[in-house]
Amino acid sequence: MKAYKNMTKEELQQLQKELSKAFEDVKGKGLKLDMSRGKPSQEQLDLSMGVLDMISSETNCKAEDGVDCRNYGDMEGIPEAKKLMADMMDTKPENVIVCGNASLTVMFDTVSRSMTHGVCGSTPWCKLDKVKFLCPVPGYDRHFAITEYFGIEMINIPMSESGPDMDMVEEYVSKDASIKGIWCVPKYSNPQGVSYSDETVRRMAALKPAAEDFRIYWDNAYVVHHIYEEEDKQAKLLDILSECEKAGNPDMVYEFASTSKVTFSGGGISAVAASPKNMEYIKKSMTIQTIGHDKLNQLRHVRYLKDLEGIKAHMMKQAASIRPKFQAVLEALDRELSGLEIGTWISPLGGYFISFEALEGCAKAIVAKCKEAGVVMTGAGATYPYKKDPKDSNIRIAPTFPTAEELKMATEIFIICVKLVSVEKLLEAK
Amino acid sequence: MKAYKNMTKEELQQLQKELSKAFEDVKGKGLKLDMSRGKPSQEQLDLSMGVLDMISSETNCKAEDGVDCRNYGDMEGIPEAKKLMADMMDTKPENVIVCGNASLTVMFDTVSRSMTHGVCGSTPWCKLDKVKFLCPVPGYDRHFAITEYFGIEMINIPMSESGPDMDMVEEYVSKDASIKGIWCVPKYSNPQGVSYSDETVRRMAALKPAAEDFRIYWDNAYVVHHIYEEEDKQAKLLDILSECEKAGNPDMVYEFASTSKVTFSGGGISAVAASPKNMEYIKKSMTIQTIGHDKLNQLRHVRYLKDLEGIKAHMMKQAASIRPKFQAVLEALDRELSGLEIGTWISPLGGYFISFEALEGCAKAIVAKCKEAGVVMTGAGATYPYKKDPKDSNIRIAPTFPTAEELKMATEIFIICVKLVSVEKLLEAK
Repeated sequence: MKAYKNMTKEELQQLQKELSKAFEDVKGKGLKLDMSRGKPSQEQLDLSMGVLDMISSETNCKAEDGVDCRNYGDMEGIPEAKKLMADMMDTKPENVIVCGNASLTVMFDTVSRSMTHGVCGSTPWCKLDKVKFLCPVPGYDRHFAITEYFGIEMINIPMSESGPDMDMVEEYVSKDASIKGIWCVPKYSNPQGVSYSDETVRRMAALKPAAEDFRIYWDNAYVVHHIYEEEDKQAKLLDILSECEKAGNPDMVYEFASTSKVTFSGGGISAVAASPKNMEYIKKSMTIQTIGHDKLNQLRHVRYLKDLEGIKAHMMKQAASIRPKFQAVLEALDRELSGLEIGTWISPLGGYFISFEALEGCAKAIVAKCKEAGVVMTGAGATYPYKKDPKDSNIRIAPTFPTAEELKMATEIFIICVKLVSVEKLLEAK
Repeated sequence: MKAYKNMTKEELQQLQKELSKAFEDVKGKGLKLDMSRGKPSQEQLDLSMGVLDMISSETNCKAEDGVDCRNYGDMEGIPEAKKLMADMMDTKPENVIVCGNASLTVMFDTVSRSMTHGVCGSTPWCKLDKVKFLCPVPGYDRHFAITEYFGIEMINIPMSESGPDMDMVEEYVSKDASIKGIWCVPKYSNPQGVSYSDETVRRMAALKPAAEDFRIYWDNAYVVHHIYEEEDKQAKLLDILSECEKAGNPDMVYEFASTSKVTFSGGGISAVAASPKNMEYIKKSMTIQTIGHDKLNQLRHVRYLKDLEGIKAHMMKQAASIRPKFQAVLEALDRELSGLEIGTWISPLGGYFISFEALEGCAKAIVAKCKEAGVVMTGAGATYPYKKDPKDSNIRIAPTFPTAEELKMATEIFIICVKLVSVEKLLEAK
């Protein structure tokens, strides 16, 4: 196929005419499709219904330490849930606190605590003139929303296929004591599906921060969320806690994970993992904040998932459900856009998204066109701090929630819009 | 019976001898009893096992608005759970957000948010030199722990049988703009079991605070937790939200409640209620903190409890379970201590505690003696800010968790210790 940029003005005008016609045709169908949401589909949720049978009036509700999960107690989580989440996060149970439904809340609370009380004895951030976070981009909008909410200045760090630009990260972190954190989704990153290379993880663990209260916010949201079988081996992520320990930085990281996309987004369990010193500091605050998280739900989850092997087997069912959707989108992009040089994308091995890089200055227009034709995409810019994509080129595609049929139509429309907006952009320059 | 204070030195010495003997006898039994914890007993927890059957792989998981409770969504809670919690709190569903397992967390988060972001646009408290809370005493140790954790200065307000000393409250609140809140357990207060009179509630609602960001923290923890049947009528609490509205102070209160002691302390649901303006401000923060609370557990609770009538019927079963325990303690106190003038107590109509006022300077010694004899009581002072009971006289008795037999023994020992310590105190003065 001929790259659009090599086309003559006349060729582009002819193409624009055809694409406009195609666009008006699909628009005329009055569709209502949604590729915006990183939500599991009904089929995926159905896979976990067994969780709901694990506790009933016929079962006992005792944890293995004898604690009655119906009552107060075990603020750190029941032992078997600590073990399960530790296994999932590739760390030790004593490094883990099992929390409530959402790891996002644990992250928010971690930043909030640093604002009011500092980090392991440092000055509370609310007393500082300036607090900054590094934000690998494109990234997860809800991370950026937390730091923005607390008035923390965010600095973009470009992502490559092996993770964030570590030269930049090292430079910033070692020189600027106002930099207190970096947001990371180290495996199957949101939205690109990039997994950090061993070198990236090791350089991350070996950072020499100017700020004693600098922490890596390691959101391992997709730690077991492979799309293909056996892909785990290719995308195996080093354990950040032990790498930090080896590098002499045992306290430099908080790791977060949850079962939101393993079992139920509306009723899962989450966890935070960190060094003993960090744990002690977290517990000082958490013990004021709660008498304990929902232990019955922890028990349900352990009884259903059992152990790491159980989680892996379960996630292969999830993979089987979402793989055809990812493949459908990727095949359509390949078929329709390869060689046109109007967009790039990475084929992810896991996670929940496909990240599309349009021509510079086209993302907002493409998303707007899609909306006009009845397809909701994640807002352009959402993957950047302050919702500002400096190149206006990144679009996040979320293939999991729609049905296969809806997804097929939505992808077709998305491709028409990408082509049409790109042609118009190129014509502007002629 | 003769009051101890009217006894001669010789009579007291004789009594001391007898009591010391009785003390050594019970101590010799090597008992391990616990009257310290405001926890439901196993029997009480068994009453709610039906909750666990409400959702299984055989049931649907749809809320009445069509939302799939297994998935993301409905950050404010599913509509039927909002209605249930609103009914329980005697307010409207639109004033309610249903949250996770613990209302304590919602209270902590409310104070934390005020620290970092202020209240509806006021200066964040962390930027102020001084923030103070009024604390009716004796009160709930975990409230005081929250304000202490955030460095908020706490001022004791004496409780009477109709609630906090409102003259003092009005004086402080109207004159000192650094006073930003008051902790209240308005019904069956912890630990005294006092319910605020209509006059108290109305005066509370009509406060004219010097600080625009002053709020009443209305922890309605025991709103439906009657010990006797039909006691609800006697202890009927005015709805603070509508009283505040009537008094022209619609935004002056946050109300909290949970099912921790209705169903499961380790797996219930909680809620916060407030005016539309407060709600809007809370949601701004909460929408950053979470995508949604555990909706499956909300659904379980609504399907089981159904409505206010369902809650009331359920709470009568709870009452039947704990009533004999309260009665056993109260009867023993009456029988053994009436007329001795070495302690006072209020017979509560609901809640989880009996509050005992020993002779001044005796509480710590009594609790220590109990411990020596194998009975754990709540630490003396725990019911006061900074754990400092200025008179060292308040002891909180928690009768719900032990079995009837354990409770009987523990109460006997407690009474021996009260008598012995009181005698020794009086002898010191002779």
